[in-house]
Amino acid sequence: MAVYTDVSFEDLEQFLQAYDVGQPSSFKGIAEGVENSNFLLRSGRGAFILTLYEKRVRAEDLPFFLGLMEHLSSRGIACPLPVRREDGALFGTLNGRPAALLTFLDGVSLRNPETTHCAAAGSALAALHEAGRGFALTRPNALGAEAWRDLASKVEGHADGVEKGLRALIEGALEIDWPAGLPSGIIHADLFPDNVLLMGDKVSGVIDFYFACNDAFAYDLAVMLNAWCFGADGAFDKARAKALFGAYRKHRALSAEEIAAMPVLARGAALRFLLTRLYDLLHHDPSALVRPKDPRDFARRLRFHLSVANPSEYGL
Amino acid sequence: MAVYTDVSFEDLEQFLQAYDVGQPSSFKGIAEGVENSNFLLRSGRGAFILTLYEKRVRAEDLPFFLGLMEHLSSRGIACPLPVRREDGALFGTLNGRPAALLTFLDGVSLRNPETTHCAAAGSALAALHEAGRGFALTRPNALGAEAWRDLASKVEGHADGVEKGLRALIEGALEIDWPAGLPSGIIHADLFPDNVLLMGDKVSGVIDFYFACNDAFAYDLAVMLNAWCFGADGAFDKARAKALFGAYRKHRALSAEEIAAMPVLARGAALRFLLTRLYDLLHHDPSALVRPKDPRDFARRLRFHLSVANPSEYGL
Repeated sequence: MAVYTDVSFEDLEQFLQAYDVGQPSSFKGIAEGVENSNFLLRSGRGAFILTLYEKRVRAEDLPFFLGLMEHLSSRGIACPLPVRREDGALFGTLNGRPAALLTFLDGVSLRNPETTHCAAAGSALAALHEAGRGFALTRPNALGAEAWRDLASKVEGHADGVEKGLRALIEGALEIDWPAGLPSGIIHADLFPDNVLLMGDKVSGVIDFYFACNDAFAYDLAVMLNAWCFGADGAFDKARAKALFGAYRKHRALSAEEIAAMPVLARGAALRFLLTRLYDLLHHDPSALVRPKDPRDFARRLRFHLSVANPSEYGL
Repeated sequence: MAVYTDVSFEDLEQFLQAYDVGQPSSFKGIAEGVENSNFLLRSGRGAFILTLYEKRVRAEDLPFFLGLMEHLSSRGIACPLPVRREDGALFGTLNGRPAALLTFLDGVSLRNPETTHCAAAGSALAALHEAGRGFALTRPNALGAEAWRDLASKVEGHADGVEKGLRALIEGALEIDWPAGLPSGIIHADLFPDNVLLMGDKVSGVIDFYFACNDAFAYDLAVMLNAWCFGADGAFDKARAKALFGAYRKHRALSAEEIAAMPVLARGAALRFLLTRLYDLLHHDPSALVRPKDPRDFARRLRFHLSVANPSEYGL
């Protein structure tokens, strides 16, 4: 949670000259997203999020991210819709950063989702996978399996300082025999509970597409298995996993290969978040106004997935 | 700007059980206020700010602050109105902090107000001074003239490390012959541009009453003189000061004593913000997710006020 780049109302007014959104009635920096600076803006035309892209999001990826949200939105997915400037551009520049204006979505994120919420989110993921078909641009998964060895080399020297045995855990997990040829397409790649907005038991929005890429659909489910199906105590909750997978499969069938690969995919997803959280912790800049997340949560999940021999243990 | 205390939606739901505000439709941490944790909450009943009071605001002062906003609101001042709990209480407890729910006000804050905005804010201050009469509670100014020597003793050893000559500047300013017996009442004591919400050229709200206290009305004007009447380049802008004082005096006359005291009051106000900013800079906790403000802005203002021999130099 952070606002890295300060934006005054005067800066905003100048930026908005390129848009047709009316006169702002309120403007607040919001504590959301660890990658970018976000502001909530209201005008007579509605509510918007202004996002300034900080160093982690590359400007050359913005046509993919913003174009994808436009594509998904036009296919009925409740996600932020980039507001185009009057000259047609999807983003502009504000205080030296690429910056975009997106529609604001109502809804709240849960810290500890229950099975009904896992089911709603599973359906939303399947709908997103279906709606992503036909999107013209592609983007490789910059944090996919091919990136982990390099990422590990940057953190493993310090891993045992964070938790004894972590280096060996990482080394072992890097030997994963990663499945090839699974059905692929556009995936969200970061669909944690904070990126799903709910109104009661229904999903009212899916947000934060800044890790979206082309990769195996089942890997997206493996990310959600890690993010949604462990209790506040860190223990695996099979009922949540059954709800997640069951709801997803009502909209998109899983092949035998996808089901068989789930334990390996789940290990990979746990390793990905373990490595990036370790990296963020070790490279933490105290002036960045953000608290790094604890990598050990994902070490524990990774150990659990290493103990899973059969997809049926996930309720599959 | 910060959210010091994390509040999950589940925490919020529990807290809201004591209130009659309906089901939340959105809930975001906002980057506002350096003293407290603030969240923007919307429900079918409207928009609200949830504030968790952190260490700087003492729980025993909350009946004064919240009661004052209720008093001012009932007298037509556009300020946040504390929403009472169903049991009548003005605040409750959330994640171990005293916490209150207040109405949200539309409007935007300016970084560099123009003369019309200074005039609008000056009128708003006079209205606030008038409306404060009759409020039953009192609170001494904890950061008033009597507190400065003690505060200075905690920072002056490091002052020259921040800017050469700062210690001598502070020592000199502490010798101010502080005026006694000026007309007094409820003052805001921190009416910087970020605490005034505007819709076009009109004030739509005055916020952040957590320094409010009983003190000289003219001191509140001296705070605004410091906060509103210097350009982005740090130079005094007499046109803004004339607009501020002129608009104020249309609603509340200034006595000859108040006018004569303005150079001394302005030095005191500059010293107060110089000292607290120095303190915040020297005691900055990097994990506090907040960037300390630069004390030198107020050293420059203090030097300017020390050069002022006659209130006419302020346009008075």
